[in-house]
Amino acid sequence: MPEYTTAHAKAGIKARLPALECWPNQYPGYEVMIEIPEFTAVCPRTGLPDFGLVRIRYLPKRWCVELKALKYYVNGYREVGIFQENAVNRILEDFVRAVKPVRAVVTGEFNARGGIKTIVEARYPKRNETSQPQ
Amino acid sequence: MPEYTTAHAKAGIKARLPALECWPNQYPGYEVMIEIPEFTAVCPRTGLPDFGLVRIRYLPKRWCVELKALKYYVNGYREVGIFQENAVNRILEDFVRAVKPVRAVVTGEFNARGGIKTIVEARYPKRNETSQPQ
Amino acid sequence: MPEYTTAHAKAGIKARLPALECWPNQYPGYEVMIEIPEFTAVCPRTGLPDFGLVRIRYLPKRWCVELKALKYYVNGYREVGIFQENAVNRILEDFVRAVKPVRAVVTGEFNARGGIKTIVEARYPKRNETSQPQ
Amino acid sequence: MPEYTTAHAKAGIKARLPALECWPNQYPGYEVMIEIPEFTAVCPRTGLPDFGLVRIRYLPKRWCVELKALKYYVNGYREVGIFQENAVNRILEDFVRAVKPVRAVVTGEFNARGGIKTIVEARYPKRNETSQPQ
Amino acid sequence: MPEYTTAHAKAGIKARLPALECWPNQYPGYEVMIEIPEFTAVCPRTGLPDFGLVRIRYLPKRWCVELKALKYYVNGYREVGIFQENAVNRILEDFVRAVKPVRAVVTGEFNARGGIKTIVEARYPKRNETSQPQ
Amino acid sequence: MPEYTTAHAKAGIKARLPALECWPNQYPGYEVMIEIPEFTAVCPRTGLPDFGLVRIRYLPKRWCVELKALKYYVNGYREVGIFQENAVNRILEDFVRAVKPVRAVVTGEFNARGGIKTIVEARYPKRNETSQPQ
Amino acid sequence: MPEYTTAHAKAGIKARLPALECWPNQYPGYEVMIEIPEFTAVCPRTGLPDFGLVRIRYLPKRWCVELKALKYYVNGYREVGIFQENAVNRILEDFVRAVKPVRAVVTGEFNARGGIKTIVEARYPKRNETSQPQ
Amino acid sequence: MPEYTTAHAKAGIKARLPALECWPNQYPGYEVMIEIPEFTAVCPRTGLPDFGLVRIRYLPKRWCVELKALKYYVNGYREVGIFQENAVNRILEDFVRAVKPVRAVVTGEFNARGGIKTIVEARYPKRNETSQPQ
Amino acid sequence: MPEYTTAHAKAGIKARLPALECWPNQYPGYEVMIEIPEFTAVCPRTGLPDFGLVRIRYLPKRWCVELKALKYYVNGYREVGIFQENAVNRILEDFVRAVKPVRAVVTGEFNARGGIKTIVEARYPKRNETSQPQ
Amino acid sequence: MPEYTTAHAKAGIKARLPALECWPNQYPGYEVMIEIPEFTAVCPRTGLPDFGLVRIRYLPKRWCVELKALKYYVNGYREVGIFQENAVNRILEDFVRAVKPVRAVVTGEFNARGGIKTIVEARYPKRNETSQPQ
Repeated sequence: MPEYTTAHAKAGIKARLPALECWPNQYPGYEVMIEIPEFTAVCPRTGLPDFGLVRIRYLPKRWCVELKALKYYVNGYREVGIFQENAVNRILEDFVRAVKPVRAVVTGEFNARGGIKTIVEARYPKRNETSQPQ
Repeated sequence: MPEYTTAHAKAGIKARLPALECWPNQYPGYEVMIEIPEFTAVCPRTGLPDFGLVRIRYLPKRWCVELKALKYYVNGYREVGIFQENAVNRILEDFVRAVKPVRAVVTGEFNARGGIKTIVEARYPKRNETSQPQ
Repeated sequence: MPEYTTAHAKAGIKARLPALECWPNQYPGYEVMIEIPEFTAVCPRTGLPDFGLVRIRYLPKRWCVELKALKYYVNGYREVGIFQENAVNRILEDFVRAVKPVRAVVTGEFNARGGIKTIVEARYPKRNETSQPQ
Repeated sequence: MPEYTTAHAKAGIKARLPALECWPNQYPGYEVMIEIPEFTAVCPRTGLPDFGLVRIRYLPKRWCVELKALKYYVNGYREVGIFQENAVNRILEDFVRAVKPVRAVVTGEFNARGGIKTIVEARYPKRNETSQPQ
Repeated sequence: MPEYTTAHAKAGIKARLPALECWPNQYPGYEVMIEIPEFTAVCPRTGLPDFGLVRIRYLPKRWCVELKALKYYVNGYREVGIFQENAVNRILEDFVRAVKPVRAVVTGEFNARGGIKTIVEARYPKRNETSQPQ
Repeated sequence: MPEYTTAHAKAGIKARLPALECWPNQYPGYEVMIEIPEFTAVCPRTGLPDFGLVRIRYLPKRWCVELKALKYYVNGYREVGIFQENAVNRILEDFVRAVKPVRAVVTGEFNARGGIKTIVEARYPKRNETSQPQ
Repeated sequence: MPEYTTAHAKAGIKARLPALECWPNQYPGYEVMIEIPEFTAVCPRTGLPDFGLVRIRYLPKRWCVELKALKYYVNGYREVGIFQENAVNRILEDFVRAVKPVRAVVTGEFNARGGIKTIVEARYPKRNETSQPQ
Repeated sequence: MPEYTTAHAKAGIKARLPALECWPNQYPGYEVMIEIPEFTAVCPRTGLPDFGLVRIRYLPKRWCVELKALKYYVNGYREVGIFQENAVNRILEDFVRAVKPVRAVVTGEFNARGGIKTIVEARYPKRNETSQPQ
Repeated sequence: MPEYTTAHAKAGIKARLPALECWPNQYPGYEVMIEIPEFTAVCPRTGLPDFGLVRIRYLPKRWCVELKALKYYVNGYREVGIFQENAVNRILEDFVRAVKPVRAVVTGEFNARGGIKTIVEARYPKRNETSQPQ
Repeated sequence: MPEYTTAHAKAGIKARLPALECWPNQYPGYEVMIEIPEFTAVCPRTGLPDFGLVRIRYLPKRWCVELKALKYYVNGYREVGIFQENAVNRILEDFVRAVKPVRAVVTGEFNARGGIKTIVEARYPKRNETSQPQ
């Protein structure tokens, strides 16, 4: 089986995906949590499919995400080779660029591979982690 | 299928609904949590029904909400076309205007649509979100 | 069905109930949680029975509550017409007067009525709620 | 049935029990949680058996508790008449004396008696409870 | 059965294990949680097998752990005699040395032995525990 | 505590209760299951309340049971002293007399007393039990 | 509140509903189970909404039910006043007429009303129930 | 550790236990299920305590078992050394002799020992097992 | 959205898929159950992905299915447009042809689409369904 | 990765394992169920560990299985390369030879490999499977 290379580590980060869309938010200062249980992508090293559950939690500012477009965006990963860690971070980046929320958290909970289950969580804005242990 | 328009984004925010009623609170400084599992409204874009569970948590001041009137108020959404995000925010606004609590949180947990499940949470008074990441 | 009146709002607050008893606490600074799943009272408006689960969490000072007397005290609500919000607040008041704890929380989790489930939580001493949103 | 007396309130606090043993800890600054689901003692008032689940959470300093000795220590309560509140506090005292941890919490979750379930939690060192409501 | 000795208390801490490997992290400031349900080692006192679930939660800096190498590393404990407390601390040490995360927590949840279940949790960097009760 | 006597064994079997009512069934050959989670009666020996969940499963012939009348019938046991075994058998007898189903099963699942939980199940028509072990 | 009348008992049995559709089955002798969690209709006596979960299990002969048409058919009950027992029997009749299965079972599991939960189950073809107790 | 001997295999089968009592059954042909979650006895080989959950299901003829006496009977095993298989069979024998049911099943579900959990089930009357595989 | 056509109803039934492989069975007369939670295919009408859990239960004769080949076979559906009912029946046909079991059952439990969840179950050999209602 | 060969298919079937032991059964005609959650063996093709839960259900004749010996027998598979299907069948054969039960069933529920979970069930005596579909 091929080893991890830099190409693997960067795979899928720039892949083309359907656009996220928005509608104008009507209320200030509330929170929305979205659960998408049918994420699937491809492992760039082995070519085998990955499956997972993606959760997005955000505090809208001027825009709310349009759910149908979000679904097509997530379906767009079906043929993309990308590491699980990168997929979660890219979803957050794309979401923040399109929806411009006050804050957002994306979590990917992936099915076990080789008996090992992985959960990845990224948030915007970043916490200052240098001074503060858990 | 029609696209999101401003009309959709504002639909139902001003629809007529049964009035909320109160009875005089007898004790200071406690909390009430109410769970209403049978919320249903209509999607303003597709005309298809939405279903959800609404939770209200509040700290009463001079009034407690009357549960039978609350039930008729929630039943009143059955024919209303309104987005899920807006329904939760409107329930909070109507509740705060009628019951005048110290504080309140309304949560709507909606059944999946297109494989995507949504939870919306609004609170009164608003937190100051500009300075404080999660 | 009769409407809510002031008589309903105050019903049961002064009803006679069996006394709570104590035994001398032997250790400082620990916490006790008690779960009583068989609370039942009567709705003062409709005359229909209410059912619920009562939880008491307290930090004893000089006394521990005697569990058999507590059970008879809770059984005493069986014929009492009282609103759920008032029952929880009264249990807390009676408990604090008899057991004199450092602090205490009483929670009542009531079965759904008209499809609406209610949870009430009261605590001693009261928090200062004016300055601090949730 | 006999009433609570001071003798009941102090029963079992000085009963002889098997000794706890330790082995030398090899790492600093981590936490151990132990779950012992088969605690049984006797109610000093009624002579009826009590059953419960005991949890110990501690941060070791120089010593780790030896699990086989801990099991014999807990089995030692089988014939001891002692109130549930006292049993949990005594387990904490014996544990702290033998293992000398940085900190420790003992929780006893007891099966329902007369339809009432009790959980007792004691911790070392004590929190300062006078200034700080929950 | 042999008693605990210093040899037992240090067993396995220096045992040879497969190396952990990394790939270059592409995003700053997110968290990864890994669940490995098939940990097994040997008790150094009794020679009997131990089974457990190991969880690793970390915030990557320059490197992400390679999951296949992590699996072989964990499988490497199969023949190693080591106490559960030491296994968790050693996994943390090996992980921190190889992956150099901002922070990391390792938890081992072990199957009951003699009716006693144990959970061990170690974290990097260490909290300052002297001033702060739980 | 008083011992079991014949009076206790027959208590409540003839107590007056609200009448069951019916409406005319419109379809042949189907089954209805009803779950009533708030049954409460009184133990004729100790005077203490019993709580339970009653299930009725029946195959209607000419009549369906009216649910509101069924609720008042079940509420009618609140002050009745009756053993759990007798309550379930009486509910079945009253139900069969009023609704005249093709067949019916009544199950009562009662909360634990003295740490002992009881379930009673009676059916109409009776099976021939003499020849057939379970 | 109005009493049950013959009009109530027959309400909704002939109401107009969207048509069920089929596609040609490709394989013999297998079974399909369909779960529709968002059934809602109206009680013909009180005008209040009913909510429930409908399950259809069938063994197709020449046709399979088209799921999108089935969804619109079930949505069609939203404004129909009909008893729960009748709704389940009517769904079975409509399904058997449209899909012509070898056999079929329809189950409706309705949310509690007045604290009483109801499940109704109808099947095609009917069993011969006269000779065979459960 | 001592090996199994004939003395171990027969231990406790004749131990003295509190008597079971009955009250006169009032209805024919129904079933009673009793759940006793706090069984404890002693292993005759190791002297260590065993814990378990005992279930009794029976079809009463002339007598119903008195639950308080049943509880004292089960508590009587606390000091008895007896194998789990024998305890379940003896409970069935004692129950059948005292209550004379049409039929009865006793199940003992014991906590794991050495990581091995055991369930034992005995029934009266015996099935003819020679001709019929499961 | 396009309507169901005969082309849709037959789509994917003849699609090329990886071959199933076997190894020689060593024991007679036992049963194997296999659970594959990551089935995904495409709806031939809408082009949207379907997700599901496939279970295979079989009684081997001369061959056991090779699990790695089975996994590649199931992964092969990823790009195939096929109705859920047909996918389950085709998996059964392919399995029976390759493994030649005494008997086999294939079940597909698919994620909800439009709020409707579907389970399909096919078995070999077919039961004679003409004479026997459920 | 090496392919399946006849050597793999027969691996471990004759491996040496610790002996099973018995004690003399005291009662006729009852059933024992044993659950062993910590089975581990090695895949003969890949050398990777397998993990599983083994259940044994049997009806003793003259002997009961000795649980401590059973535990050592199961631990004995730790270094044995054997397919999951063969391990379950061999456990049944060894058990029947040692304990000579009226009947027995062995079930192995193995952790997922490659996302595929397997359960194997073998029974003694064999059913006649030629005439009877499930």
